[in-house]
Amino acid sequence: MINNELLHPMSIVVVGASNNVHKPGGAILKNLISGGYAGELRAVNPKEQEVQGVKAYPDVSAIPDTDLAVLAIPAALCPDAVETLAAEKHVRAFIILSAGFGEETHEGALLEDRILETVNRYGASLIGPNCIGYMNAWHHSVFSQPIPQLHPQGVDLISSSGATAVFILESAVTKGLPFCSVWSVGNAKQIGVEDVLQYMDENFDPDRDSHIKLLYIESIGDPDRLLFHASSLIKKGCRIAAIKSGSSESGSRAASSHTGAIASSDSAVEALFRKAGIVRCYSREELTTVGCIFTLPELKGKNFAIITHAGGPGVMLTDALSKGGLNVPRLSGPLADELKAQLYPGASVGNPIDILATGTPEHLKLCLDYCENKFEDIDAVMAIFGTPGLVTMFEMYDVLHEAMQTCRKPIFPILPSINTAGAEVADFLKKGHVNFADEVTLGTMLTRIMNVPRPAANEIELFGVDVPRIRRIIDSIADDGYIPPHQVQALLRSAGIPLVDEFVSSKKEEVLAFARRAGFPVVAKVVGPVHKSDIGGVVLNIKSEQHLALEFDRMMQLPEVTAVMVQPMLKGTELFIGAKYEEKFGHVVLCGLGGIFVEVLKDVSSGLAPLSYEEAYSMIRSLRAYKIIKGTRGQQGVNEDKFAEIIVRLSTLLRFATEIKEMDINPLLATDKHVIAVDARIRIEKSRGPVQ
Amino acid sequence: MINNELLHPMSIVVVGASNNVHKPGGAILKNLISGGYAGELRAVNPKEQEVQGVKAYPDVSAIPDTDLAVLAIPAALCPDAVETLAAEKHVRAFIILSAGFGEETHEGALLEDRILETVNRYGASLIGPNCIGYMNAWHHSVFSQPIPQLHPQGVDLISSSGATAVFILESAVTKGLPFCSVWSVGNAKQIGVEDVLQYMDENFDPDRDSHIKLLYIESIGDPDRLLFHASSLIKKGCRIAAIKSGSSESGSRAASSHTGAIASSDSAVEALFRKAGIVRCYSREELTTVGCIFTLPELKGKNFAIITHAGGPGVMLTDALSKGGLNVPRLSGPLADELKAQLYPGASVGNPIDILATGTPEHLKLCLDYCENKFEDIDAVMAIFGTPGLVTMFEMYDVLHEAMQTCRKPIFPILPSINTAGAEVADFLKKGHVNFADEVTLGTMLTRIMNVPRPAANEIELFGVDVPRIRRIIDSIADDGYIPPHQVQALLRSAGIPLVDEFVSSKKEEVLAFARRAGFPVVAKVVGPVHKSDIGGVVLNIKSEQHLALEFDRMMQLPEVTAVMVQPMLKGTELFIGAKYEEKFGHVVLCGLGGIFVEVLKDVSSGLAPLSYEEAYSMIRSLRAYKIIKGTRGQQGVNEDKFAEIIVRLSTLLRFATEIKEMDINPLLATDKHVIAVDARIRIEKSRGPVQ
Repeated sequence: MINNELLHPMSIVVVGASNNVHKPGGAILKNLISGGYAGELRAVNPKEQEVQGVKAYPDVSAIPDTDLAVLAIPAALCPDAVETLAAEKHVRAFIILSAGFGEETHEGALLEDRILETVNRYGASLIGPNCIGYMNAWHHSVFSQPIPQLHPQGVDLISSSGATAVFILESAVTKGLPFCSVWSVGNAKQIGVEDVLQYMDENFDPDRDSHIKLLYIESIGDPDRLLFHASSLIKKGCRIAAIKSGSSESGSRAASSHTGAIASSDSAVEALFRKAGIVRCYSREELTTVGCIFTLPELKGKNFAIITHAGGPGVMLTDALSKGGLNVPRLSGPLADELKAQLYPGASVGNPIDILATGTPEHLKLCLDYCENKFEDIDAVMAIFGTPGLVTMFEMYDVLHEAMQTCRKPIFPILPSINTAGAEVADFLKKGHVNFADEVTLGTMLTRIMNVPRPAANEIELFGVDVPRIRRIIDSIADDGYIPPHQVQALLRSAGIPLVDEFVSSKKEEVLAFARRAGFPVVAKVVGPVHKSDIGGVVLNIKSEQHLALEFDRMMQLPEVTAVMVQPMLKGTELFIGAKYEEKFGHVVLCGLGGIFVEVLKDVSSGLAPLSYEEAYSMIRSLRAYKIIKGTRGQQGVNEDKFAEIIVRLSTLLRFATEIKEMDINPLLATDKHVIAVDARIRIEKSRGPVQ
Repeated sequence: MINNELLHPMSIVVVGASNNVHKPGGAILKNLISGGYAGELRAVNPKEQEVQGVKAYPDVSAIPDTDLAVLAIPAALCPDAVETLAAEKHVRAFIILSAGFGEETHEGALLEDRILETVNRYGASLIGPNCIGYMNAWHHSVFSQPIPQLHPQGVDLISSSGATAVFILESAVTKGLPFCSVWSVGNAKQIGVEDVLQYMDENFDPDRDSHIKLLYIESIGDPDRLLFHASSLIKKGCRIAAIKSGSSESGSRAASSHTGAIASSDSAVEALFRKAGIVRCYSREELTTVGCIFTLPELKGKNFAIITHAGGPGVMLTDALSKGGLNVPRLSGPLADELKAQLYPGASVGNPIDILATGTPEHLKLCLDYCENKFEDIDAVMAIFGTPGLVTMFEMYDVLHEAMQTCRKPIFPILPSINTAGAEVADFLKKGHVNFADEVTLGTMLTRIMNVPRPAANEIELFGVDVPRIRRIIDSIADDGYIPPHQVQALLRSAGIPLVDEFVSSKKEEVLAFARRAGFPVVAKVVGPVHKSDIGGVVLNIKSEQHLALEFDRMMQLPEVTAVMVQPMLKGTELFIGAKYEEKFGHVVLCGLGGIFVEVLKDVSSGLAPLSYEEAYSMIRSLRAYKIIKGTRGQQGVNEDKFAEIIVRLSTLLRFATEIKEMDINPLLATDKHVIAVDARIRIEKSRGPVQ
């Protein structure tokens, strides 16, 4: 319920305003004033006529009509204040800084409920409670420091945690990263991270709005909505990076203790971010570095020129880029020679281009010009320019500044002398630029960004999947747990997944008759127990009727065995597909090669159902063992198209059968012609997760 | 030839001293003066009586006897000046800042040679040329900024690149990292990185000297010496971290263009660092973070408590530590309850310990006390304390300061509010502490450190290796290239490596007779061609004499085939050992599982010959597929002890046969009882790399 009164209020009242700037009610008023808020500013304070030069009213009932109210009063007083402000003063936006609500006690949660009821009744917006506030270029309604540069071309920051937002800003201001808006959603009683994204998506104006969103998320309450709006924004030209903390088991415990949220499984988060095209970060430093990279023009290719007057950092940066699959191509030939001839003797242009410690601003200008206009296989420039302090860097940085205004190719400024050239760096940042103080951090994050796929298509592949039949089968299952083989087969066949021919019976004669028809060798497996191999319940390569008869007799004696299943013995490379239902996220689908690849090497890649063909191919290709699928020296590959098709079909099946909580097809046997499912298990649970 | 005149000169002359502090000769004098140099300071300047208040002499021949001369004059004038100063003025230490020597031209290289000849003749020391200088607490003989805090408990920085040293200092001073000495070795004409380490090792005084060394290296000229002295220092209690840049192919090119050095292969560097116990870093940020960690007491265990008043960073740090295998154990029970009862309602002690935004310095003190004295399974504390700016942090940081003086357990201060609490952070640093501004960077580097092994033992395992016989075989080989099977076998047998029985002949009857004796099935392989399988030159599982006879006839028709080799067909898990000689480093030994594990998954680990048993086990255990060696569900493991033994024996063989440039044993077949080499190739090259 984000509205204009929150984003662009014509009047703001600070309830609990104070002359003591060491209190939130004092600090927020100070920030509003020093931020040059141009609307009407009012204060509520029972003891003062004026607070920090702003007219003060003794009570909320005494103020004139106001757009936005910022509350910095004890939690217990908030519900009544909100009621009065909404009912009598037409306040349609609230920011509640106060803590002491649901994050602490049950009584606090009830106070929150009352407030929410009121604001919803009046169609008002609510940020918080328990937050640092909200700020944009128009109004700095936060009680915290630092206040970054704020303008519409800056980045939007949305954070679950107020303190973390503050520390992200600490890391950002040092780099010169400007902001468009900062949202600290606190307890997110009405407006959470997903709501802000949704608002930004639904109201996106490419000419007016920021194209960069940075998120800090402790728990994803509504993964579908996050996925939808993040993808949508990215498709509209935005770039999004996010920290989702609580990725480890202990980290989740920490997250729970902090916000009372139940942490989501990390592989689901990973899959969701990839599907949406969100760049995942793990630290404030990473997030703000990616934010800075996003402020520069988007890269059109992977070839970098490095221009520097100090060798070492150029080498380290080259290492970092190469490690991440980006290129620092050698520059040679007549153009390179021409450039070299215009630099000091000893300079090198092979890339990195080293103009030497004595290199001049004119040399830098020349190199930038060659990279922009003459070296055709260069897509972007990294300029590393620090100083041992002999001369100032103003002129050098002016050259960078000029070039960054005019060049089409992105120029990444790496200015390491943040102390010695502190004044020059500050001057450069003031012109609206960012600074990457550490070249390797930049290189590492750039490669991270380059490896994030575009958002996936969000259609479901339905061709050949018989959804009504799938629903009939699922609906016919009465009990939770692993379902019997014929139902597993029926479900997979309904999704168009090819299955090996098989026959189940507890009668020996029927089993032998099937094997004769199908042809030897065959495989025999017990029906009933879950871990079949552990009890000797699987026998491969049975070549004769006599052998099969003996195995049948033996197997029927094993505990829990109700029948024996026979299949023709197929040959091929073992593949694996698995899926697990994660509450709220849906199914995480895993694929890989079977056997030790899954069990020992954990070489699996994951995606979030439903999956497009593009996603399925990207999953397959990101396997470490992909070369085996493609075929390697002396060994034929397998049919990648069929493998991708089965992954896509399965993901569609799952989307319509959310009662499936766990399943795997293991193995699928694959040749260059076919991929066929040989064995599969499906566990159903109906008590949770009905069809949505 | 490092001497006391360089480290602790009683008098210093700056040749080329200037009143213009924007020139090196002016800047260095300024640094010496503002650094409070307490010895005699002199200047040489033909035009001035006094430079920056220091008495100036018109010429080097006019000065009194002096210990150290810093030269900031054109390269061409240096050799004569050095000669005069050494011969007539008893100068026994030189720092030459000037560029224009071997790094630029051949003529420059000749100037360097003359200088070296002079300084060596007089037993003087020489830093540079082409460097920023040298500094310690006694004298700041550098022309660059920033000057860090300098005291004997700081870190020693040794850098191949002057500019990089300067930028490392930029990154360090922000963190409060103090230095003991900074060495910029420049062209390293007399003193290189290895020389400085050797000096520090040979003269190490644990009570007086810094225990922390940070290195930036662009090329390792003498790997053996680096390994020896780095290991030795670490065994004496030092801690060493290093950047070796030029690790990628393009990075190497950049390194070459910068220093004219030939870059070493990166896997050899990796192996050398592991063997020495050096923590490898890839950026200035990483190096200075590790330096800061090293200033704290060494960790005795892997269990961390995180104390904070802001949830988010605690969660991110927990994630980073857990990802790296460190623990943030849950704290519960009566002690935890007791602590919780003394904090504000809503605080959590489950770990992270969150004392809430309103938590007081007393609360922090209490938590630190519980971690130090009561929570027994806590080994170290991470304290994250920033501020949104309402109150100052002096008191909070004083509590940290006090605790860090008295606690046995290391306390890592994470103070993110470097802007808002800039004054408080500066005050804290002034008390001799460091600050980790980004919690995740700290967590990541801590796990890096924790995963570096102790330095390896440097004895060679000789038991069962017949060195004289190895030398006789090698010496008997006339030609470079792949050596014939009987010599391969003889070499491996001399090292005590078990080999499968085999027989080579071009006579069918002999081959058949051997197969009869050894027993079928057998394997037949062609002798002659290098890539045997590609031409159908390997046939496994030959079960009869007839079959063998047919294969023999077919094989002898293949091109380049001179004979056929027959072996009994063994069963087991395929293992792989390979080695490659790297100029100067010696042999890098690789091990792994054979087949796709090596070829597709690149799952190999490496070590530098000679290897101890401990190193061999550590190599084996760091394989991703180690579970297969140990044995996994349903599959017996292989004899790890025998595998390690063969790795050790091979590494000893290689150390005495440096003519072996490339070799592999592939496969070795391994069961739970035996590991036997089945096939091996060895390439000899005698033209380079004689026995050392």
